[in-house]
Amino acid sequence: MPAPLPDWFVELAASLRQWGRWGDDDQLGTLNLIDDAAVRRGAAAVKHGRRRSLAMRFDQSSPQVGSIPGRINPLRTMVAINTPYLGDPANFCASDDIVTMGLQASTHWDALAHVSYGGVMWNGVPASAVTAEGGATKLGIHRVRTLTSRGVLLDIARARGEERLAPGHGITPGDLDAAVERAATTLQPGDVVLVRTGNAGLMAERKRTEYTTGEQPGLTTACCAWFNERDIAAVATDTVAFEVYPGEDDAVLFPVHLLDLVEIGLTQGQNFDLEDLAADCADDGVYTFLLEASPIPFTGGLGAPVNPVAVK
Amino acid sequence: MPAPLPDWFVELAASLRQWGRWGDDDQLGTLNLIDDAAVRRGAAAVKHGRRRSLAMRFDQSSPQVGSIPGRINPLRTMVAINTPYLGDPANFCASDDIVTMGLQASTHWDALAHVSYGGVMWNGVPASAVTAEGGATKLGIHRVRTLTSRGVLLDIARARGEERLAPGHGITPGDLDAAVERAATTLQPGDVVLVRTGNAGLMAERKRTEYTTGEQPGLTTACCAWFNERDIAAVATDTVAFEVYPGEDDAVLFPVHLLDLVEIGLTQGQNFDLEDLAADCADDGVYTFLLEASPIPFTGGLGAPVNPVAVK
Amino acid sequence: MPAPLPDWFVELAASLRQWGRWGDDDQLGTLNLIDDAAVRRGAAAVKHGRRRSLAMRFDQSSPQVGSIPGRINPLRTMVAINTPYLGDPANFCASDDIVTMGLQASTHWDALAHVSYGGVMWNGVPASAVTAEGGATKLGIHRVRTLTSRGVLLDIARARGEERLAPGHGITPGDLDAAVERAATTLQPGDVVLVRTGNAGLMAERKRTEYTTGEQPGLTTACCAWFNERDIAAVATDTVAFEVYPGEDDAVLFPVHLLDLVEIGLTQGQNFDLEDLAADCADDGVYTFLLEASPIPFTGGLGAPVNPVAVK
Amino acid sequence: MPAPLPDWFVELAASLRQWGRWGDDDQLGTLNLIDDAAVRRGAAAVKHGRRRSLAMRFDQSSPQVGSIPGRINPLRTMVAINTPYLGDPANFCASDDIVTMGLQASTHWDALAHVSYGGVMWNGVPASAVTAEGGATKLGIHRVRTLTSRGVLLDIARARGEERLAPGHGITPGDLDAAVERAATTLQPGDVVLVRTGNAGLMAERKRTEYTTGEQPGLTTACCAWFNERDIAAVATDTVAFEVYPGEDDAVLFPVHLLDLVEIGLTQGQNFDLEDLAADCADDGVYTFLLEASPIPFTGGLGAPVNPVAVK
Repeated sequence: MPAPLPDWFVELAASLRQWGRWGDDDQLGTLNLIDDAAVRRGAAAVKHGRRRSLAMRFDQSSPQVGSIPGRINPLRTMVAINTPYLGDPANFCASDDIVTMGLQASTHWDALAHVSYGGVMWNGVPASAVTAEGGATKLGIHRVRTLTSRGVLLDIARARGEERLAPGHGITPGDLDAAVERAATTLQPGDVVLVRTGNAGLMAERKRTEYTTGEQPGLTTACCAWFNERDIAAVATDTVAFEVYPGEDDAVLFPVHLLDLVEIGLTQGQNFDLEDLAADCADDGVYTFLLEASPIPFTGGLGAPVNPVAVK
Repeated sequence: MPAPLPDWFVELAASLRQWGRWGDDDQLGTLNLIDDAAVRRGAAAVKHGRRRSLAMRFDQSSPQVGSIPGRINPLRTMVAINTPYLGDPANFCASDDIVTMGLQASTHWDALAHVSYGGVMWNGVPASAVTAEGGATKLGIHRVRTLTSRGVLLDIARARGEERLAPGHGITPGDLDAAVERAATTLQPGDVVLVRTGNAGLMAERKRTEYTTGEQPGLTTACCAWFNERDIAAVATDTVAFEVYPGEDDAVLFPVHLLDLVEIGLTQGQNFDLEDLAADCADDGVYTFLLEASPIPFTGGLGAPVNPVAVK
Repeated sequence: MPAPLPDWFVELAASLRQWGRWGDDDQLGTLNLIDDAAVRRGAAAVKHGRRRSLAMRFDQSSPQVGSIPGRINPLRTMVAINTPYLGDPANFCASDDIVTMGLQASTHWDALAHVSYGGVMWNGVPASAVTAEGGATKLGIHRVRTLTSRGVLLDIARARGEERLAPGHGITPGDLDAAVERAATTLQPGDVVLVRTGNAGLMAERKRTEYTTGEQPGLTTACCAWFNERDIAAVATDTVAFEVYPGEDDAVLFPVHLLDLVEIGLTQGQNFDLEDLAADCADDGVYTFLLEASPIPFTGGLGAPVNPVAVK
Repeated sequence: MPAPLPDWFVELAASLRQWGRWGDDDQLGTLNLIDDAAVRRGAAAVKHGRRRSLAMRFDQSSPQVGSIPGRINPLRTMVAINTPYLGDPANFCASDDIVTMGLQASTHWDALAHVSYGGVMWNGVPASAVTAEGGATKLGIHRVRTLTSRGVLLDIARARGEERLAPGHGITPGDLDAAVERAATTLQPGDVVLVRTGNAGLMAERKRTEYTTGEQPGLTTACCAWFNERDIAAVATDTVAFEVYPGEDDAVLFPVHLLDLVEIGLTQGQNFDLEDLAADCADDGVYTFLLEASPIPFTGGLGAPVNPVAVK
């Protein structure tokens, strides 16, 4: 007989459940909160024209170390190198390549279909909607045609006066509040929030195993309500797990994933490199920007790579 | 003995050559023209907040039909389907997938390293900088950290009163001028231009073979100077070949690629789906927008998939 | 309500069912019939030392044309070309490559887990033993450590005086009997039978679409009993479908697969190129040989590529 | 200026060079030595009918640990799981999968084109015959249609009274002689020799890093002449590197590869699991057998997976 989920989780899940909010056939969850006004607000945040990519590397030194079965780092290989199409290198020559990769290997958004529990996904869609033939036949990443809004950086590490959050540090609503205060802005419905732990710095320091395995700083379940109350459209972090690991209770694994993706319908992003952006924000004191982070719309994808760009 | 390139091409190439314009070590070509002002101009083009993805499908029905060796359409396959990590489906379950694809199979930007002739690429970089081990060790797509600017749609088809340009129609500077006039804007340095032939409609009509093979409408070599004179940062089309096919002279294959990528350093995009955007522009008469189209930065990539988004 | 299977099929299936014959935990089916004596008989068939590969091409011109979703032809790409490991091409240089392919794209054996009906596979194993995480967790191709025995070619085409069987020709027990007579041998338990239609010749003639799609010559359901009565260990054909297509009754798809793989536990091979071997056998009148055709043992594979070799 | 190769190596290479032995256009090297008589001798070695696969695992626990760039372990993923082709699971259902892998990731033969030095490969073929478009356009693994002969196990470890050779132990001609004496046979032209260090046991003990990296036992350059003098057709080992590592002289990397593949044209196999076979041979005192080890003939492959089978 399976172990029951702990009462606290069941109750929290019930209190957060947003099923039906955007209709029975909804595929987008909180991304519906990105309305035209939110996008205009994002565009209005562009004051200077500076833009920063938040993408980590896409190659064999991407974050994966084999701990998640099958989620391989991008392997790019050559199919043509300066091929002389007319047989003469003095004329047109072309080079071409292919890639094989886990869709969630590097910087990515999770599809809402990425996780399930009790046989259901977001909005009560049966978990069986994920199939070998079609992948996410519901709630797939290709449903997210665009993901553009105002972005807000919540630099938890700097707000706590730390270079980087300690492994296993669970981010609390208090941490979020402090970072908002530091950001000197008010979160608005449809905003996309980027939560910085400082962990991406580990990748830059080539401490990939430390970045990807073992204890991780990250969000706690109390933050789910915090984001939900503020009608945040999507949240991304600079970690591999998004949420704190180990979690708060051994009886439920990755509870933040379950609450965000299944109950709230909140799209999550991982492996966002927030180091340069955070330095920029610390420098000018402005923590808001236009965020353009539309995923590659792989049909049926359970997630997808993205090159997120913040424009200030 | 190899056939010499035709004189007209050699002279045109020499007249367009921009090598050294951004220094000996430049990796970006005309993308250098996207300065902060261009980005601010892009952001200022956002009036309403509407956004449109210009991505074609990323799956086995992407444009490739086998005519370009090795450039396979995205094949997404499953590595996990609702895997119960704790052994109990009542608790956390996750689904995960991988993809294998040609980097230029669907909507993409070419890297400047994509083509060469006479042993050189943009800025005189030796073609040998493309290697099996590292791909584009110079001029790779990962050098393009962001690609965000004001976008301008030049709807050649509508400007000519056609639903879709005829196969083999070569777009002329006159066509471009007419489309600019229709767009009622002035092109400015750092703008990204999207050139519509209407061909993406073939994909929607499931005429993939017609879209991908045989005669193609597209840009002619005279347009290279036109874009160069206007300091356009990048150009993308809704075709598989970018330029007209067959070309103007059998003695030189894909001359527009050679002039743009090798001589001018102009980044080219292909397989952009411009149908919805064009209908929108025709509707409100506004052909300018913020274009955010930063490629996935595969290290050493000869090209990369992108989900381009136009925001009006 | 699902359409019931036709009575004739249900009765035939029941009459052929061999479940439990090799125990409840069996993973090999009729491959158990290859005992040491069968292998000695195979070795004894080597008179001259001539050997022939029965492999079709493993590259982008392998049989697949896209009609079976996801079963892509082998794409081999480069990761290193004469890489000078010490930085000096005068010293050690190495070239290396990878491949992506459908396991059943070219010459292959099906795993017993490849098909199911009514929720079960061979020996009553639940179809749910095939998972996204592990593939064929039961009845996978890796269970077949070796596949070596006496081989017998049944050249149906030559026995019927035809260069190649007509598309849609259903091979009957009478056809098999005639080919055995031509082979002038007696089938024995544990033999592996190769059934020639002549279709591999289409691949040599570059008629891949004709080879892979549309009407196909092949085995009929009556042959299942014929092989079963003779305790044949495995059967392979020079076709993509193994069995005649379209089948005998629209109400049941690929009935030979279901009878062989699910009921009898008979391992099937496809895309064996029997042209050279058949010419050899026609030449010397000897249709028996050592057959060594052990698949690459991919863990959990639903099938696997093989380079089958006949030694006479 | 590149460092010159050491004199001893240059002299040894010259003394071993077999270029032209089988004509200017030869693609097979010493595999030409497998004549019909050798194959008959192999078949005659089958006394009992026992067969053993020498394949290591083909999955994510194959030998690679990332130390050889791009040579990834096999990743098998699902494209179909019990897909009901007629829409009804009571009727025909099929499961299908694909694989991505380094061709040399697990048990494999090197193609003669795998290595070069000084710009040449076996028989003086220019190294430039390996291309991004075609792979090994000369000396590719697909030229090896069959690889079947008498096999002889030289159990160096047991001959030295060791469970497993020490890391860094260089096998000498004396070691080979002792193992031949233990095998109580005479090597004959066209034989295929399997050299056991015992290292495959590390894989069984899940010591993959130890198996794949650091010091390795293996063959020394003096053994190249030893095999050459005896006209051995091919040699395989139960190690990742084939030869001892580090080698005898820092000035030349992997000298055995260069001598075998480039100078002698001797096909090399790696990652053969010889543990069961060696136990069998130790048990009955018989070290000869039929070896059938024909690689999957990937067109242009620099190597290929194989499921080698020894039949006694």
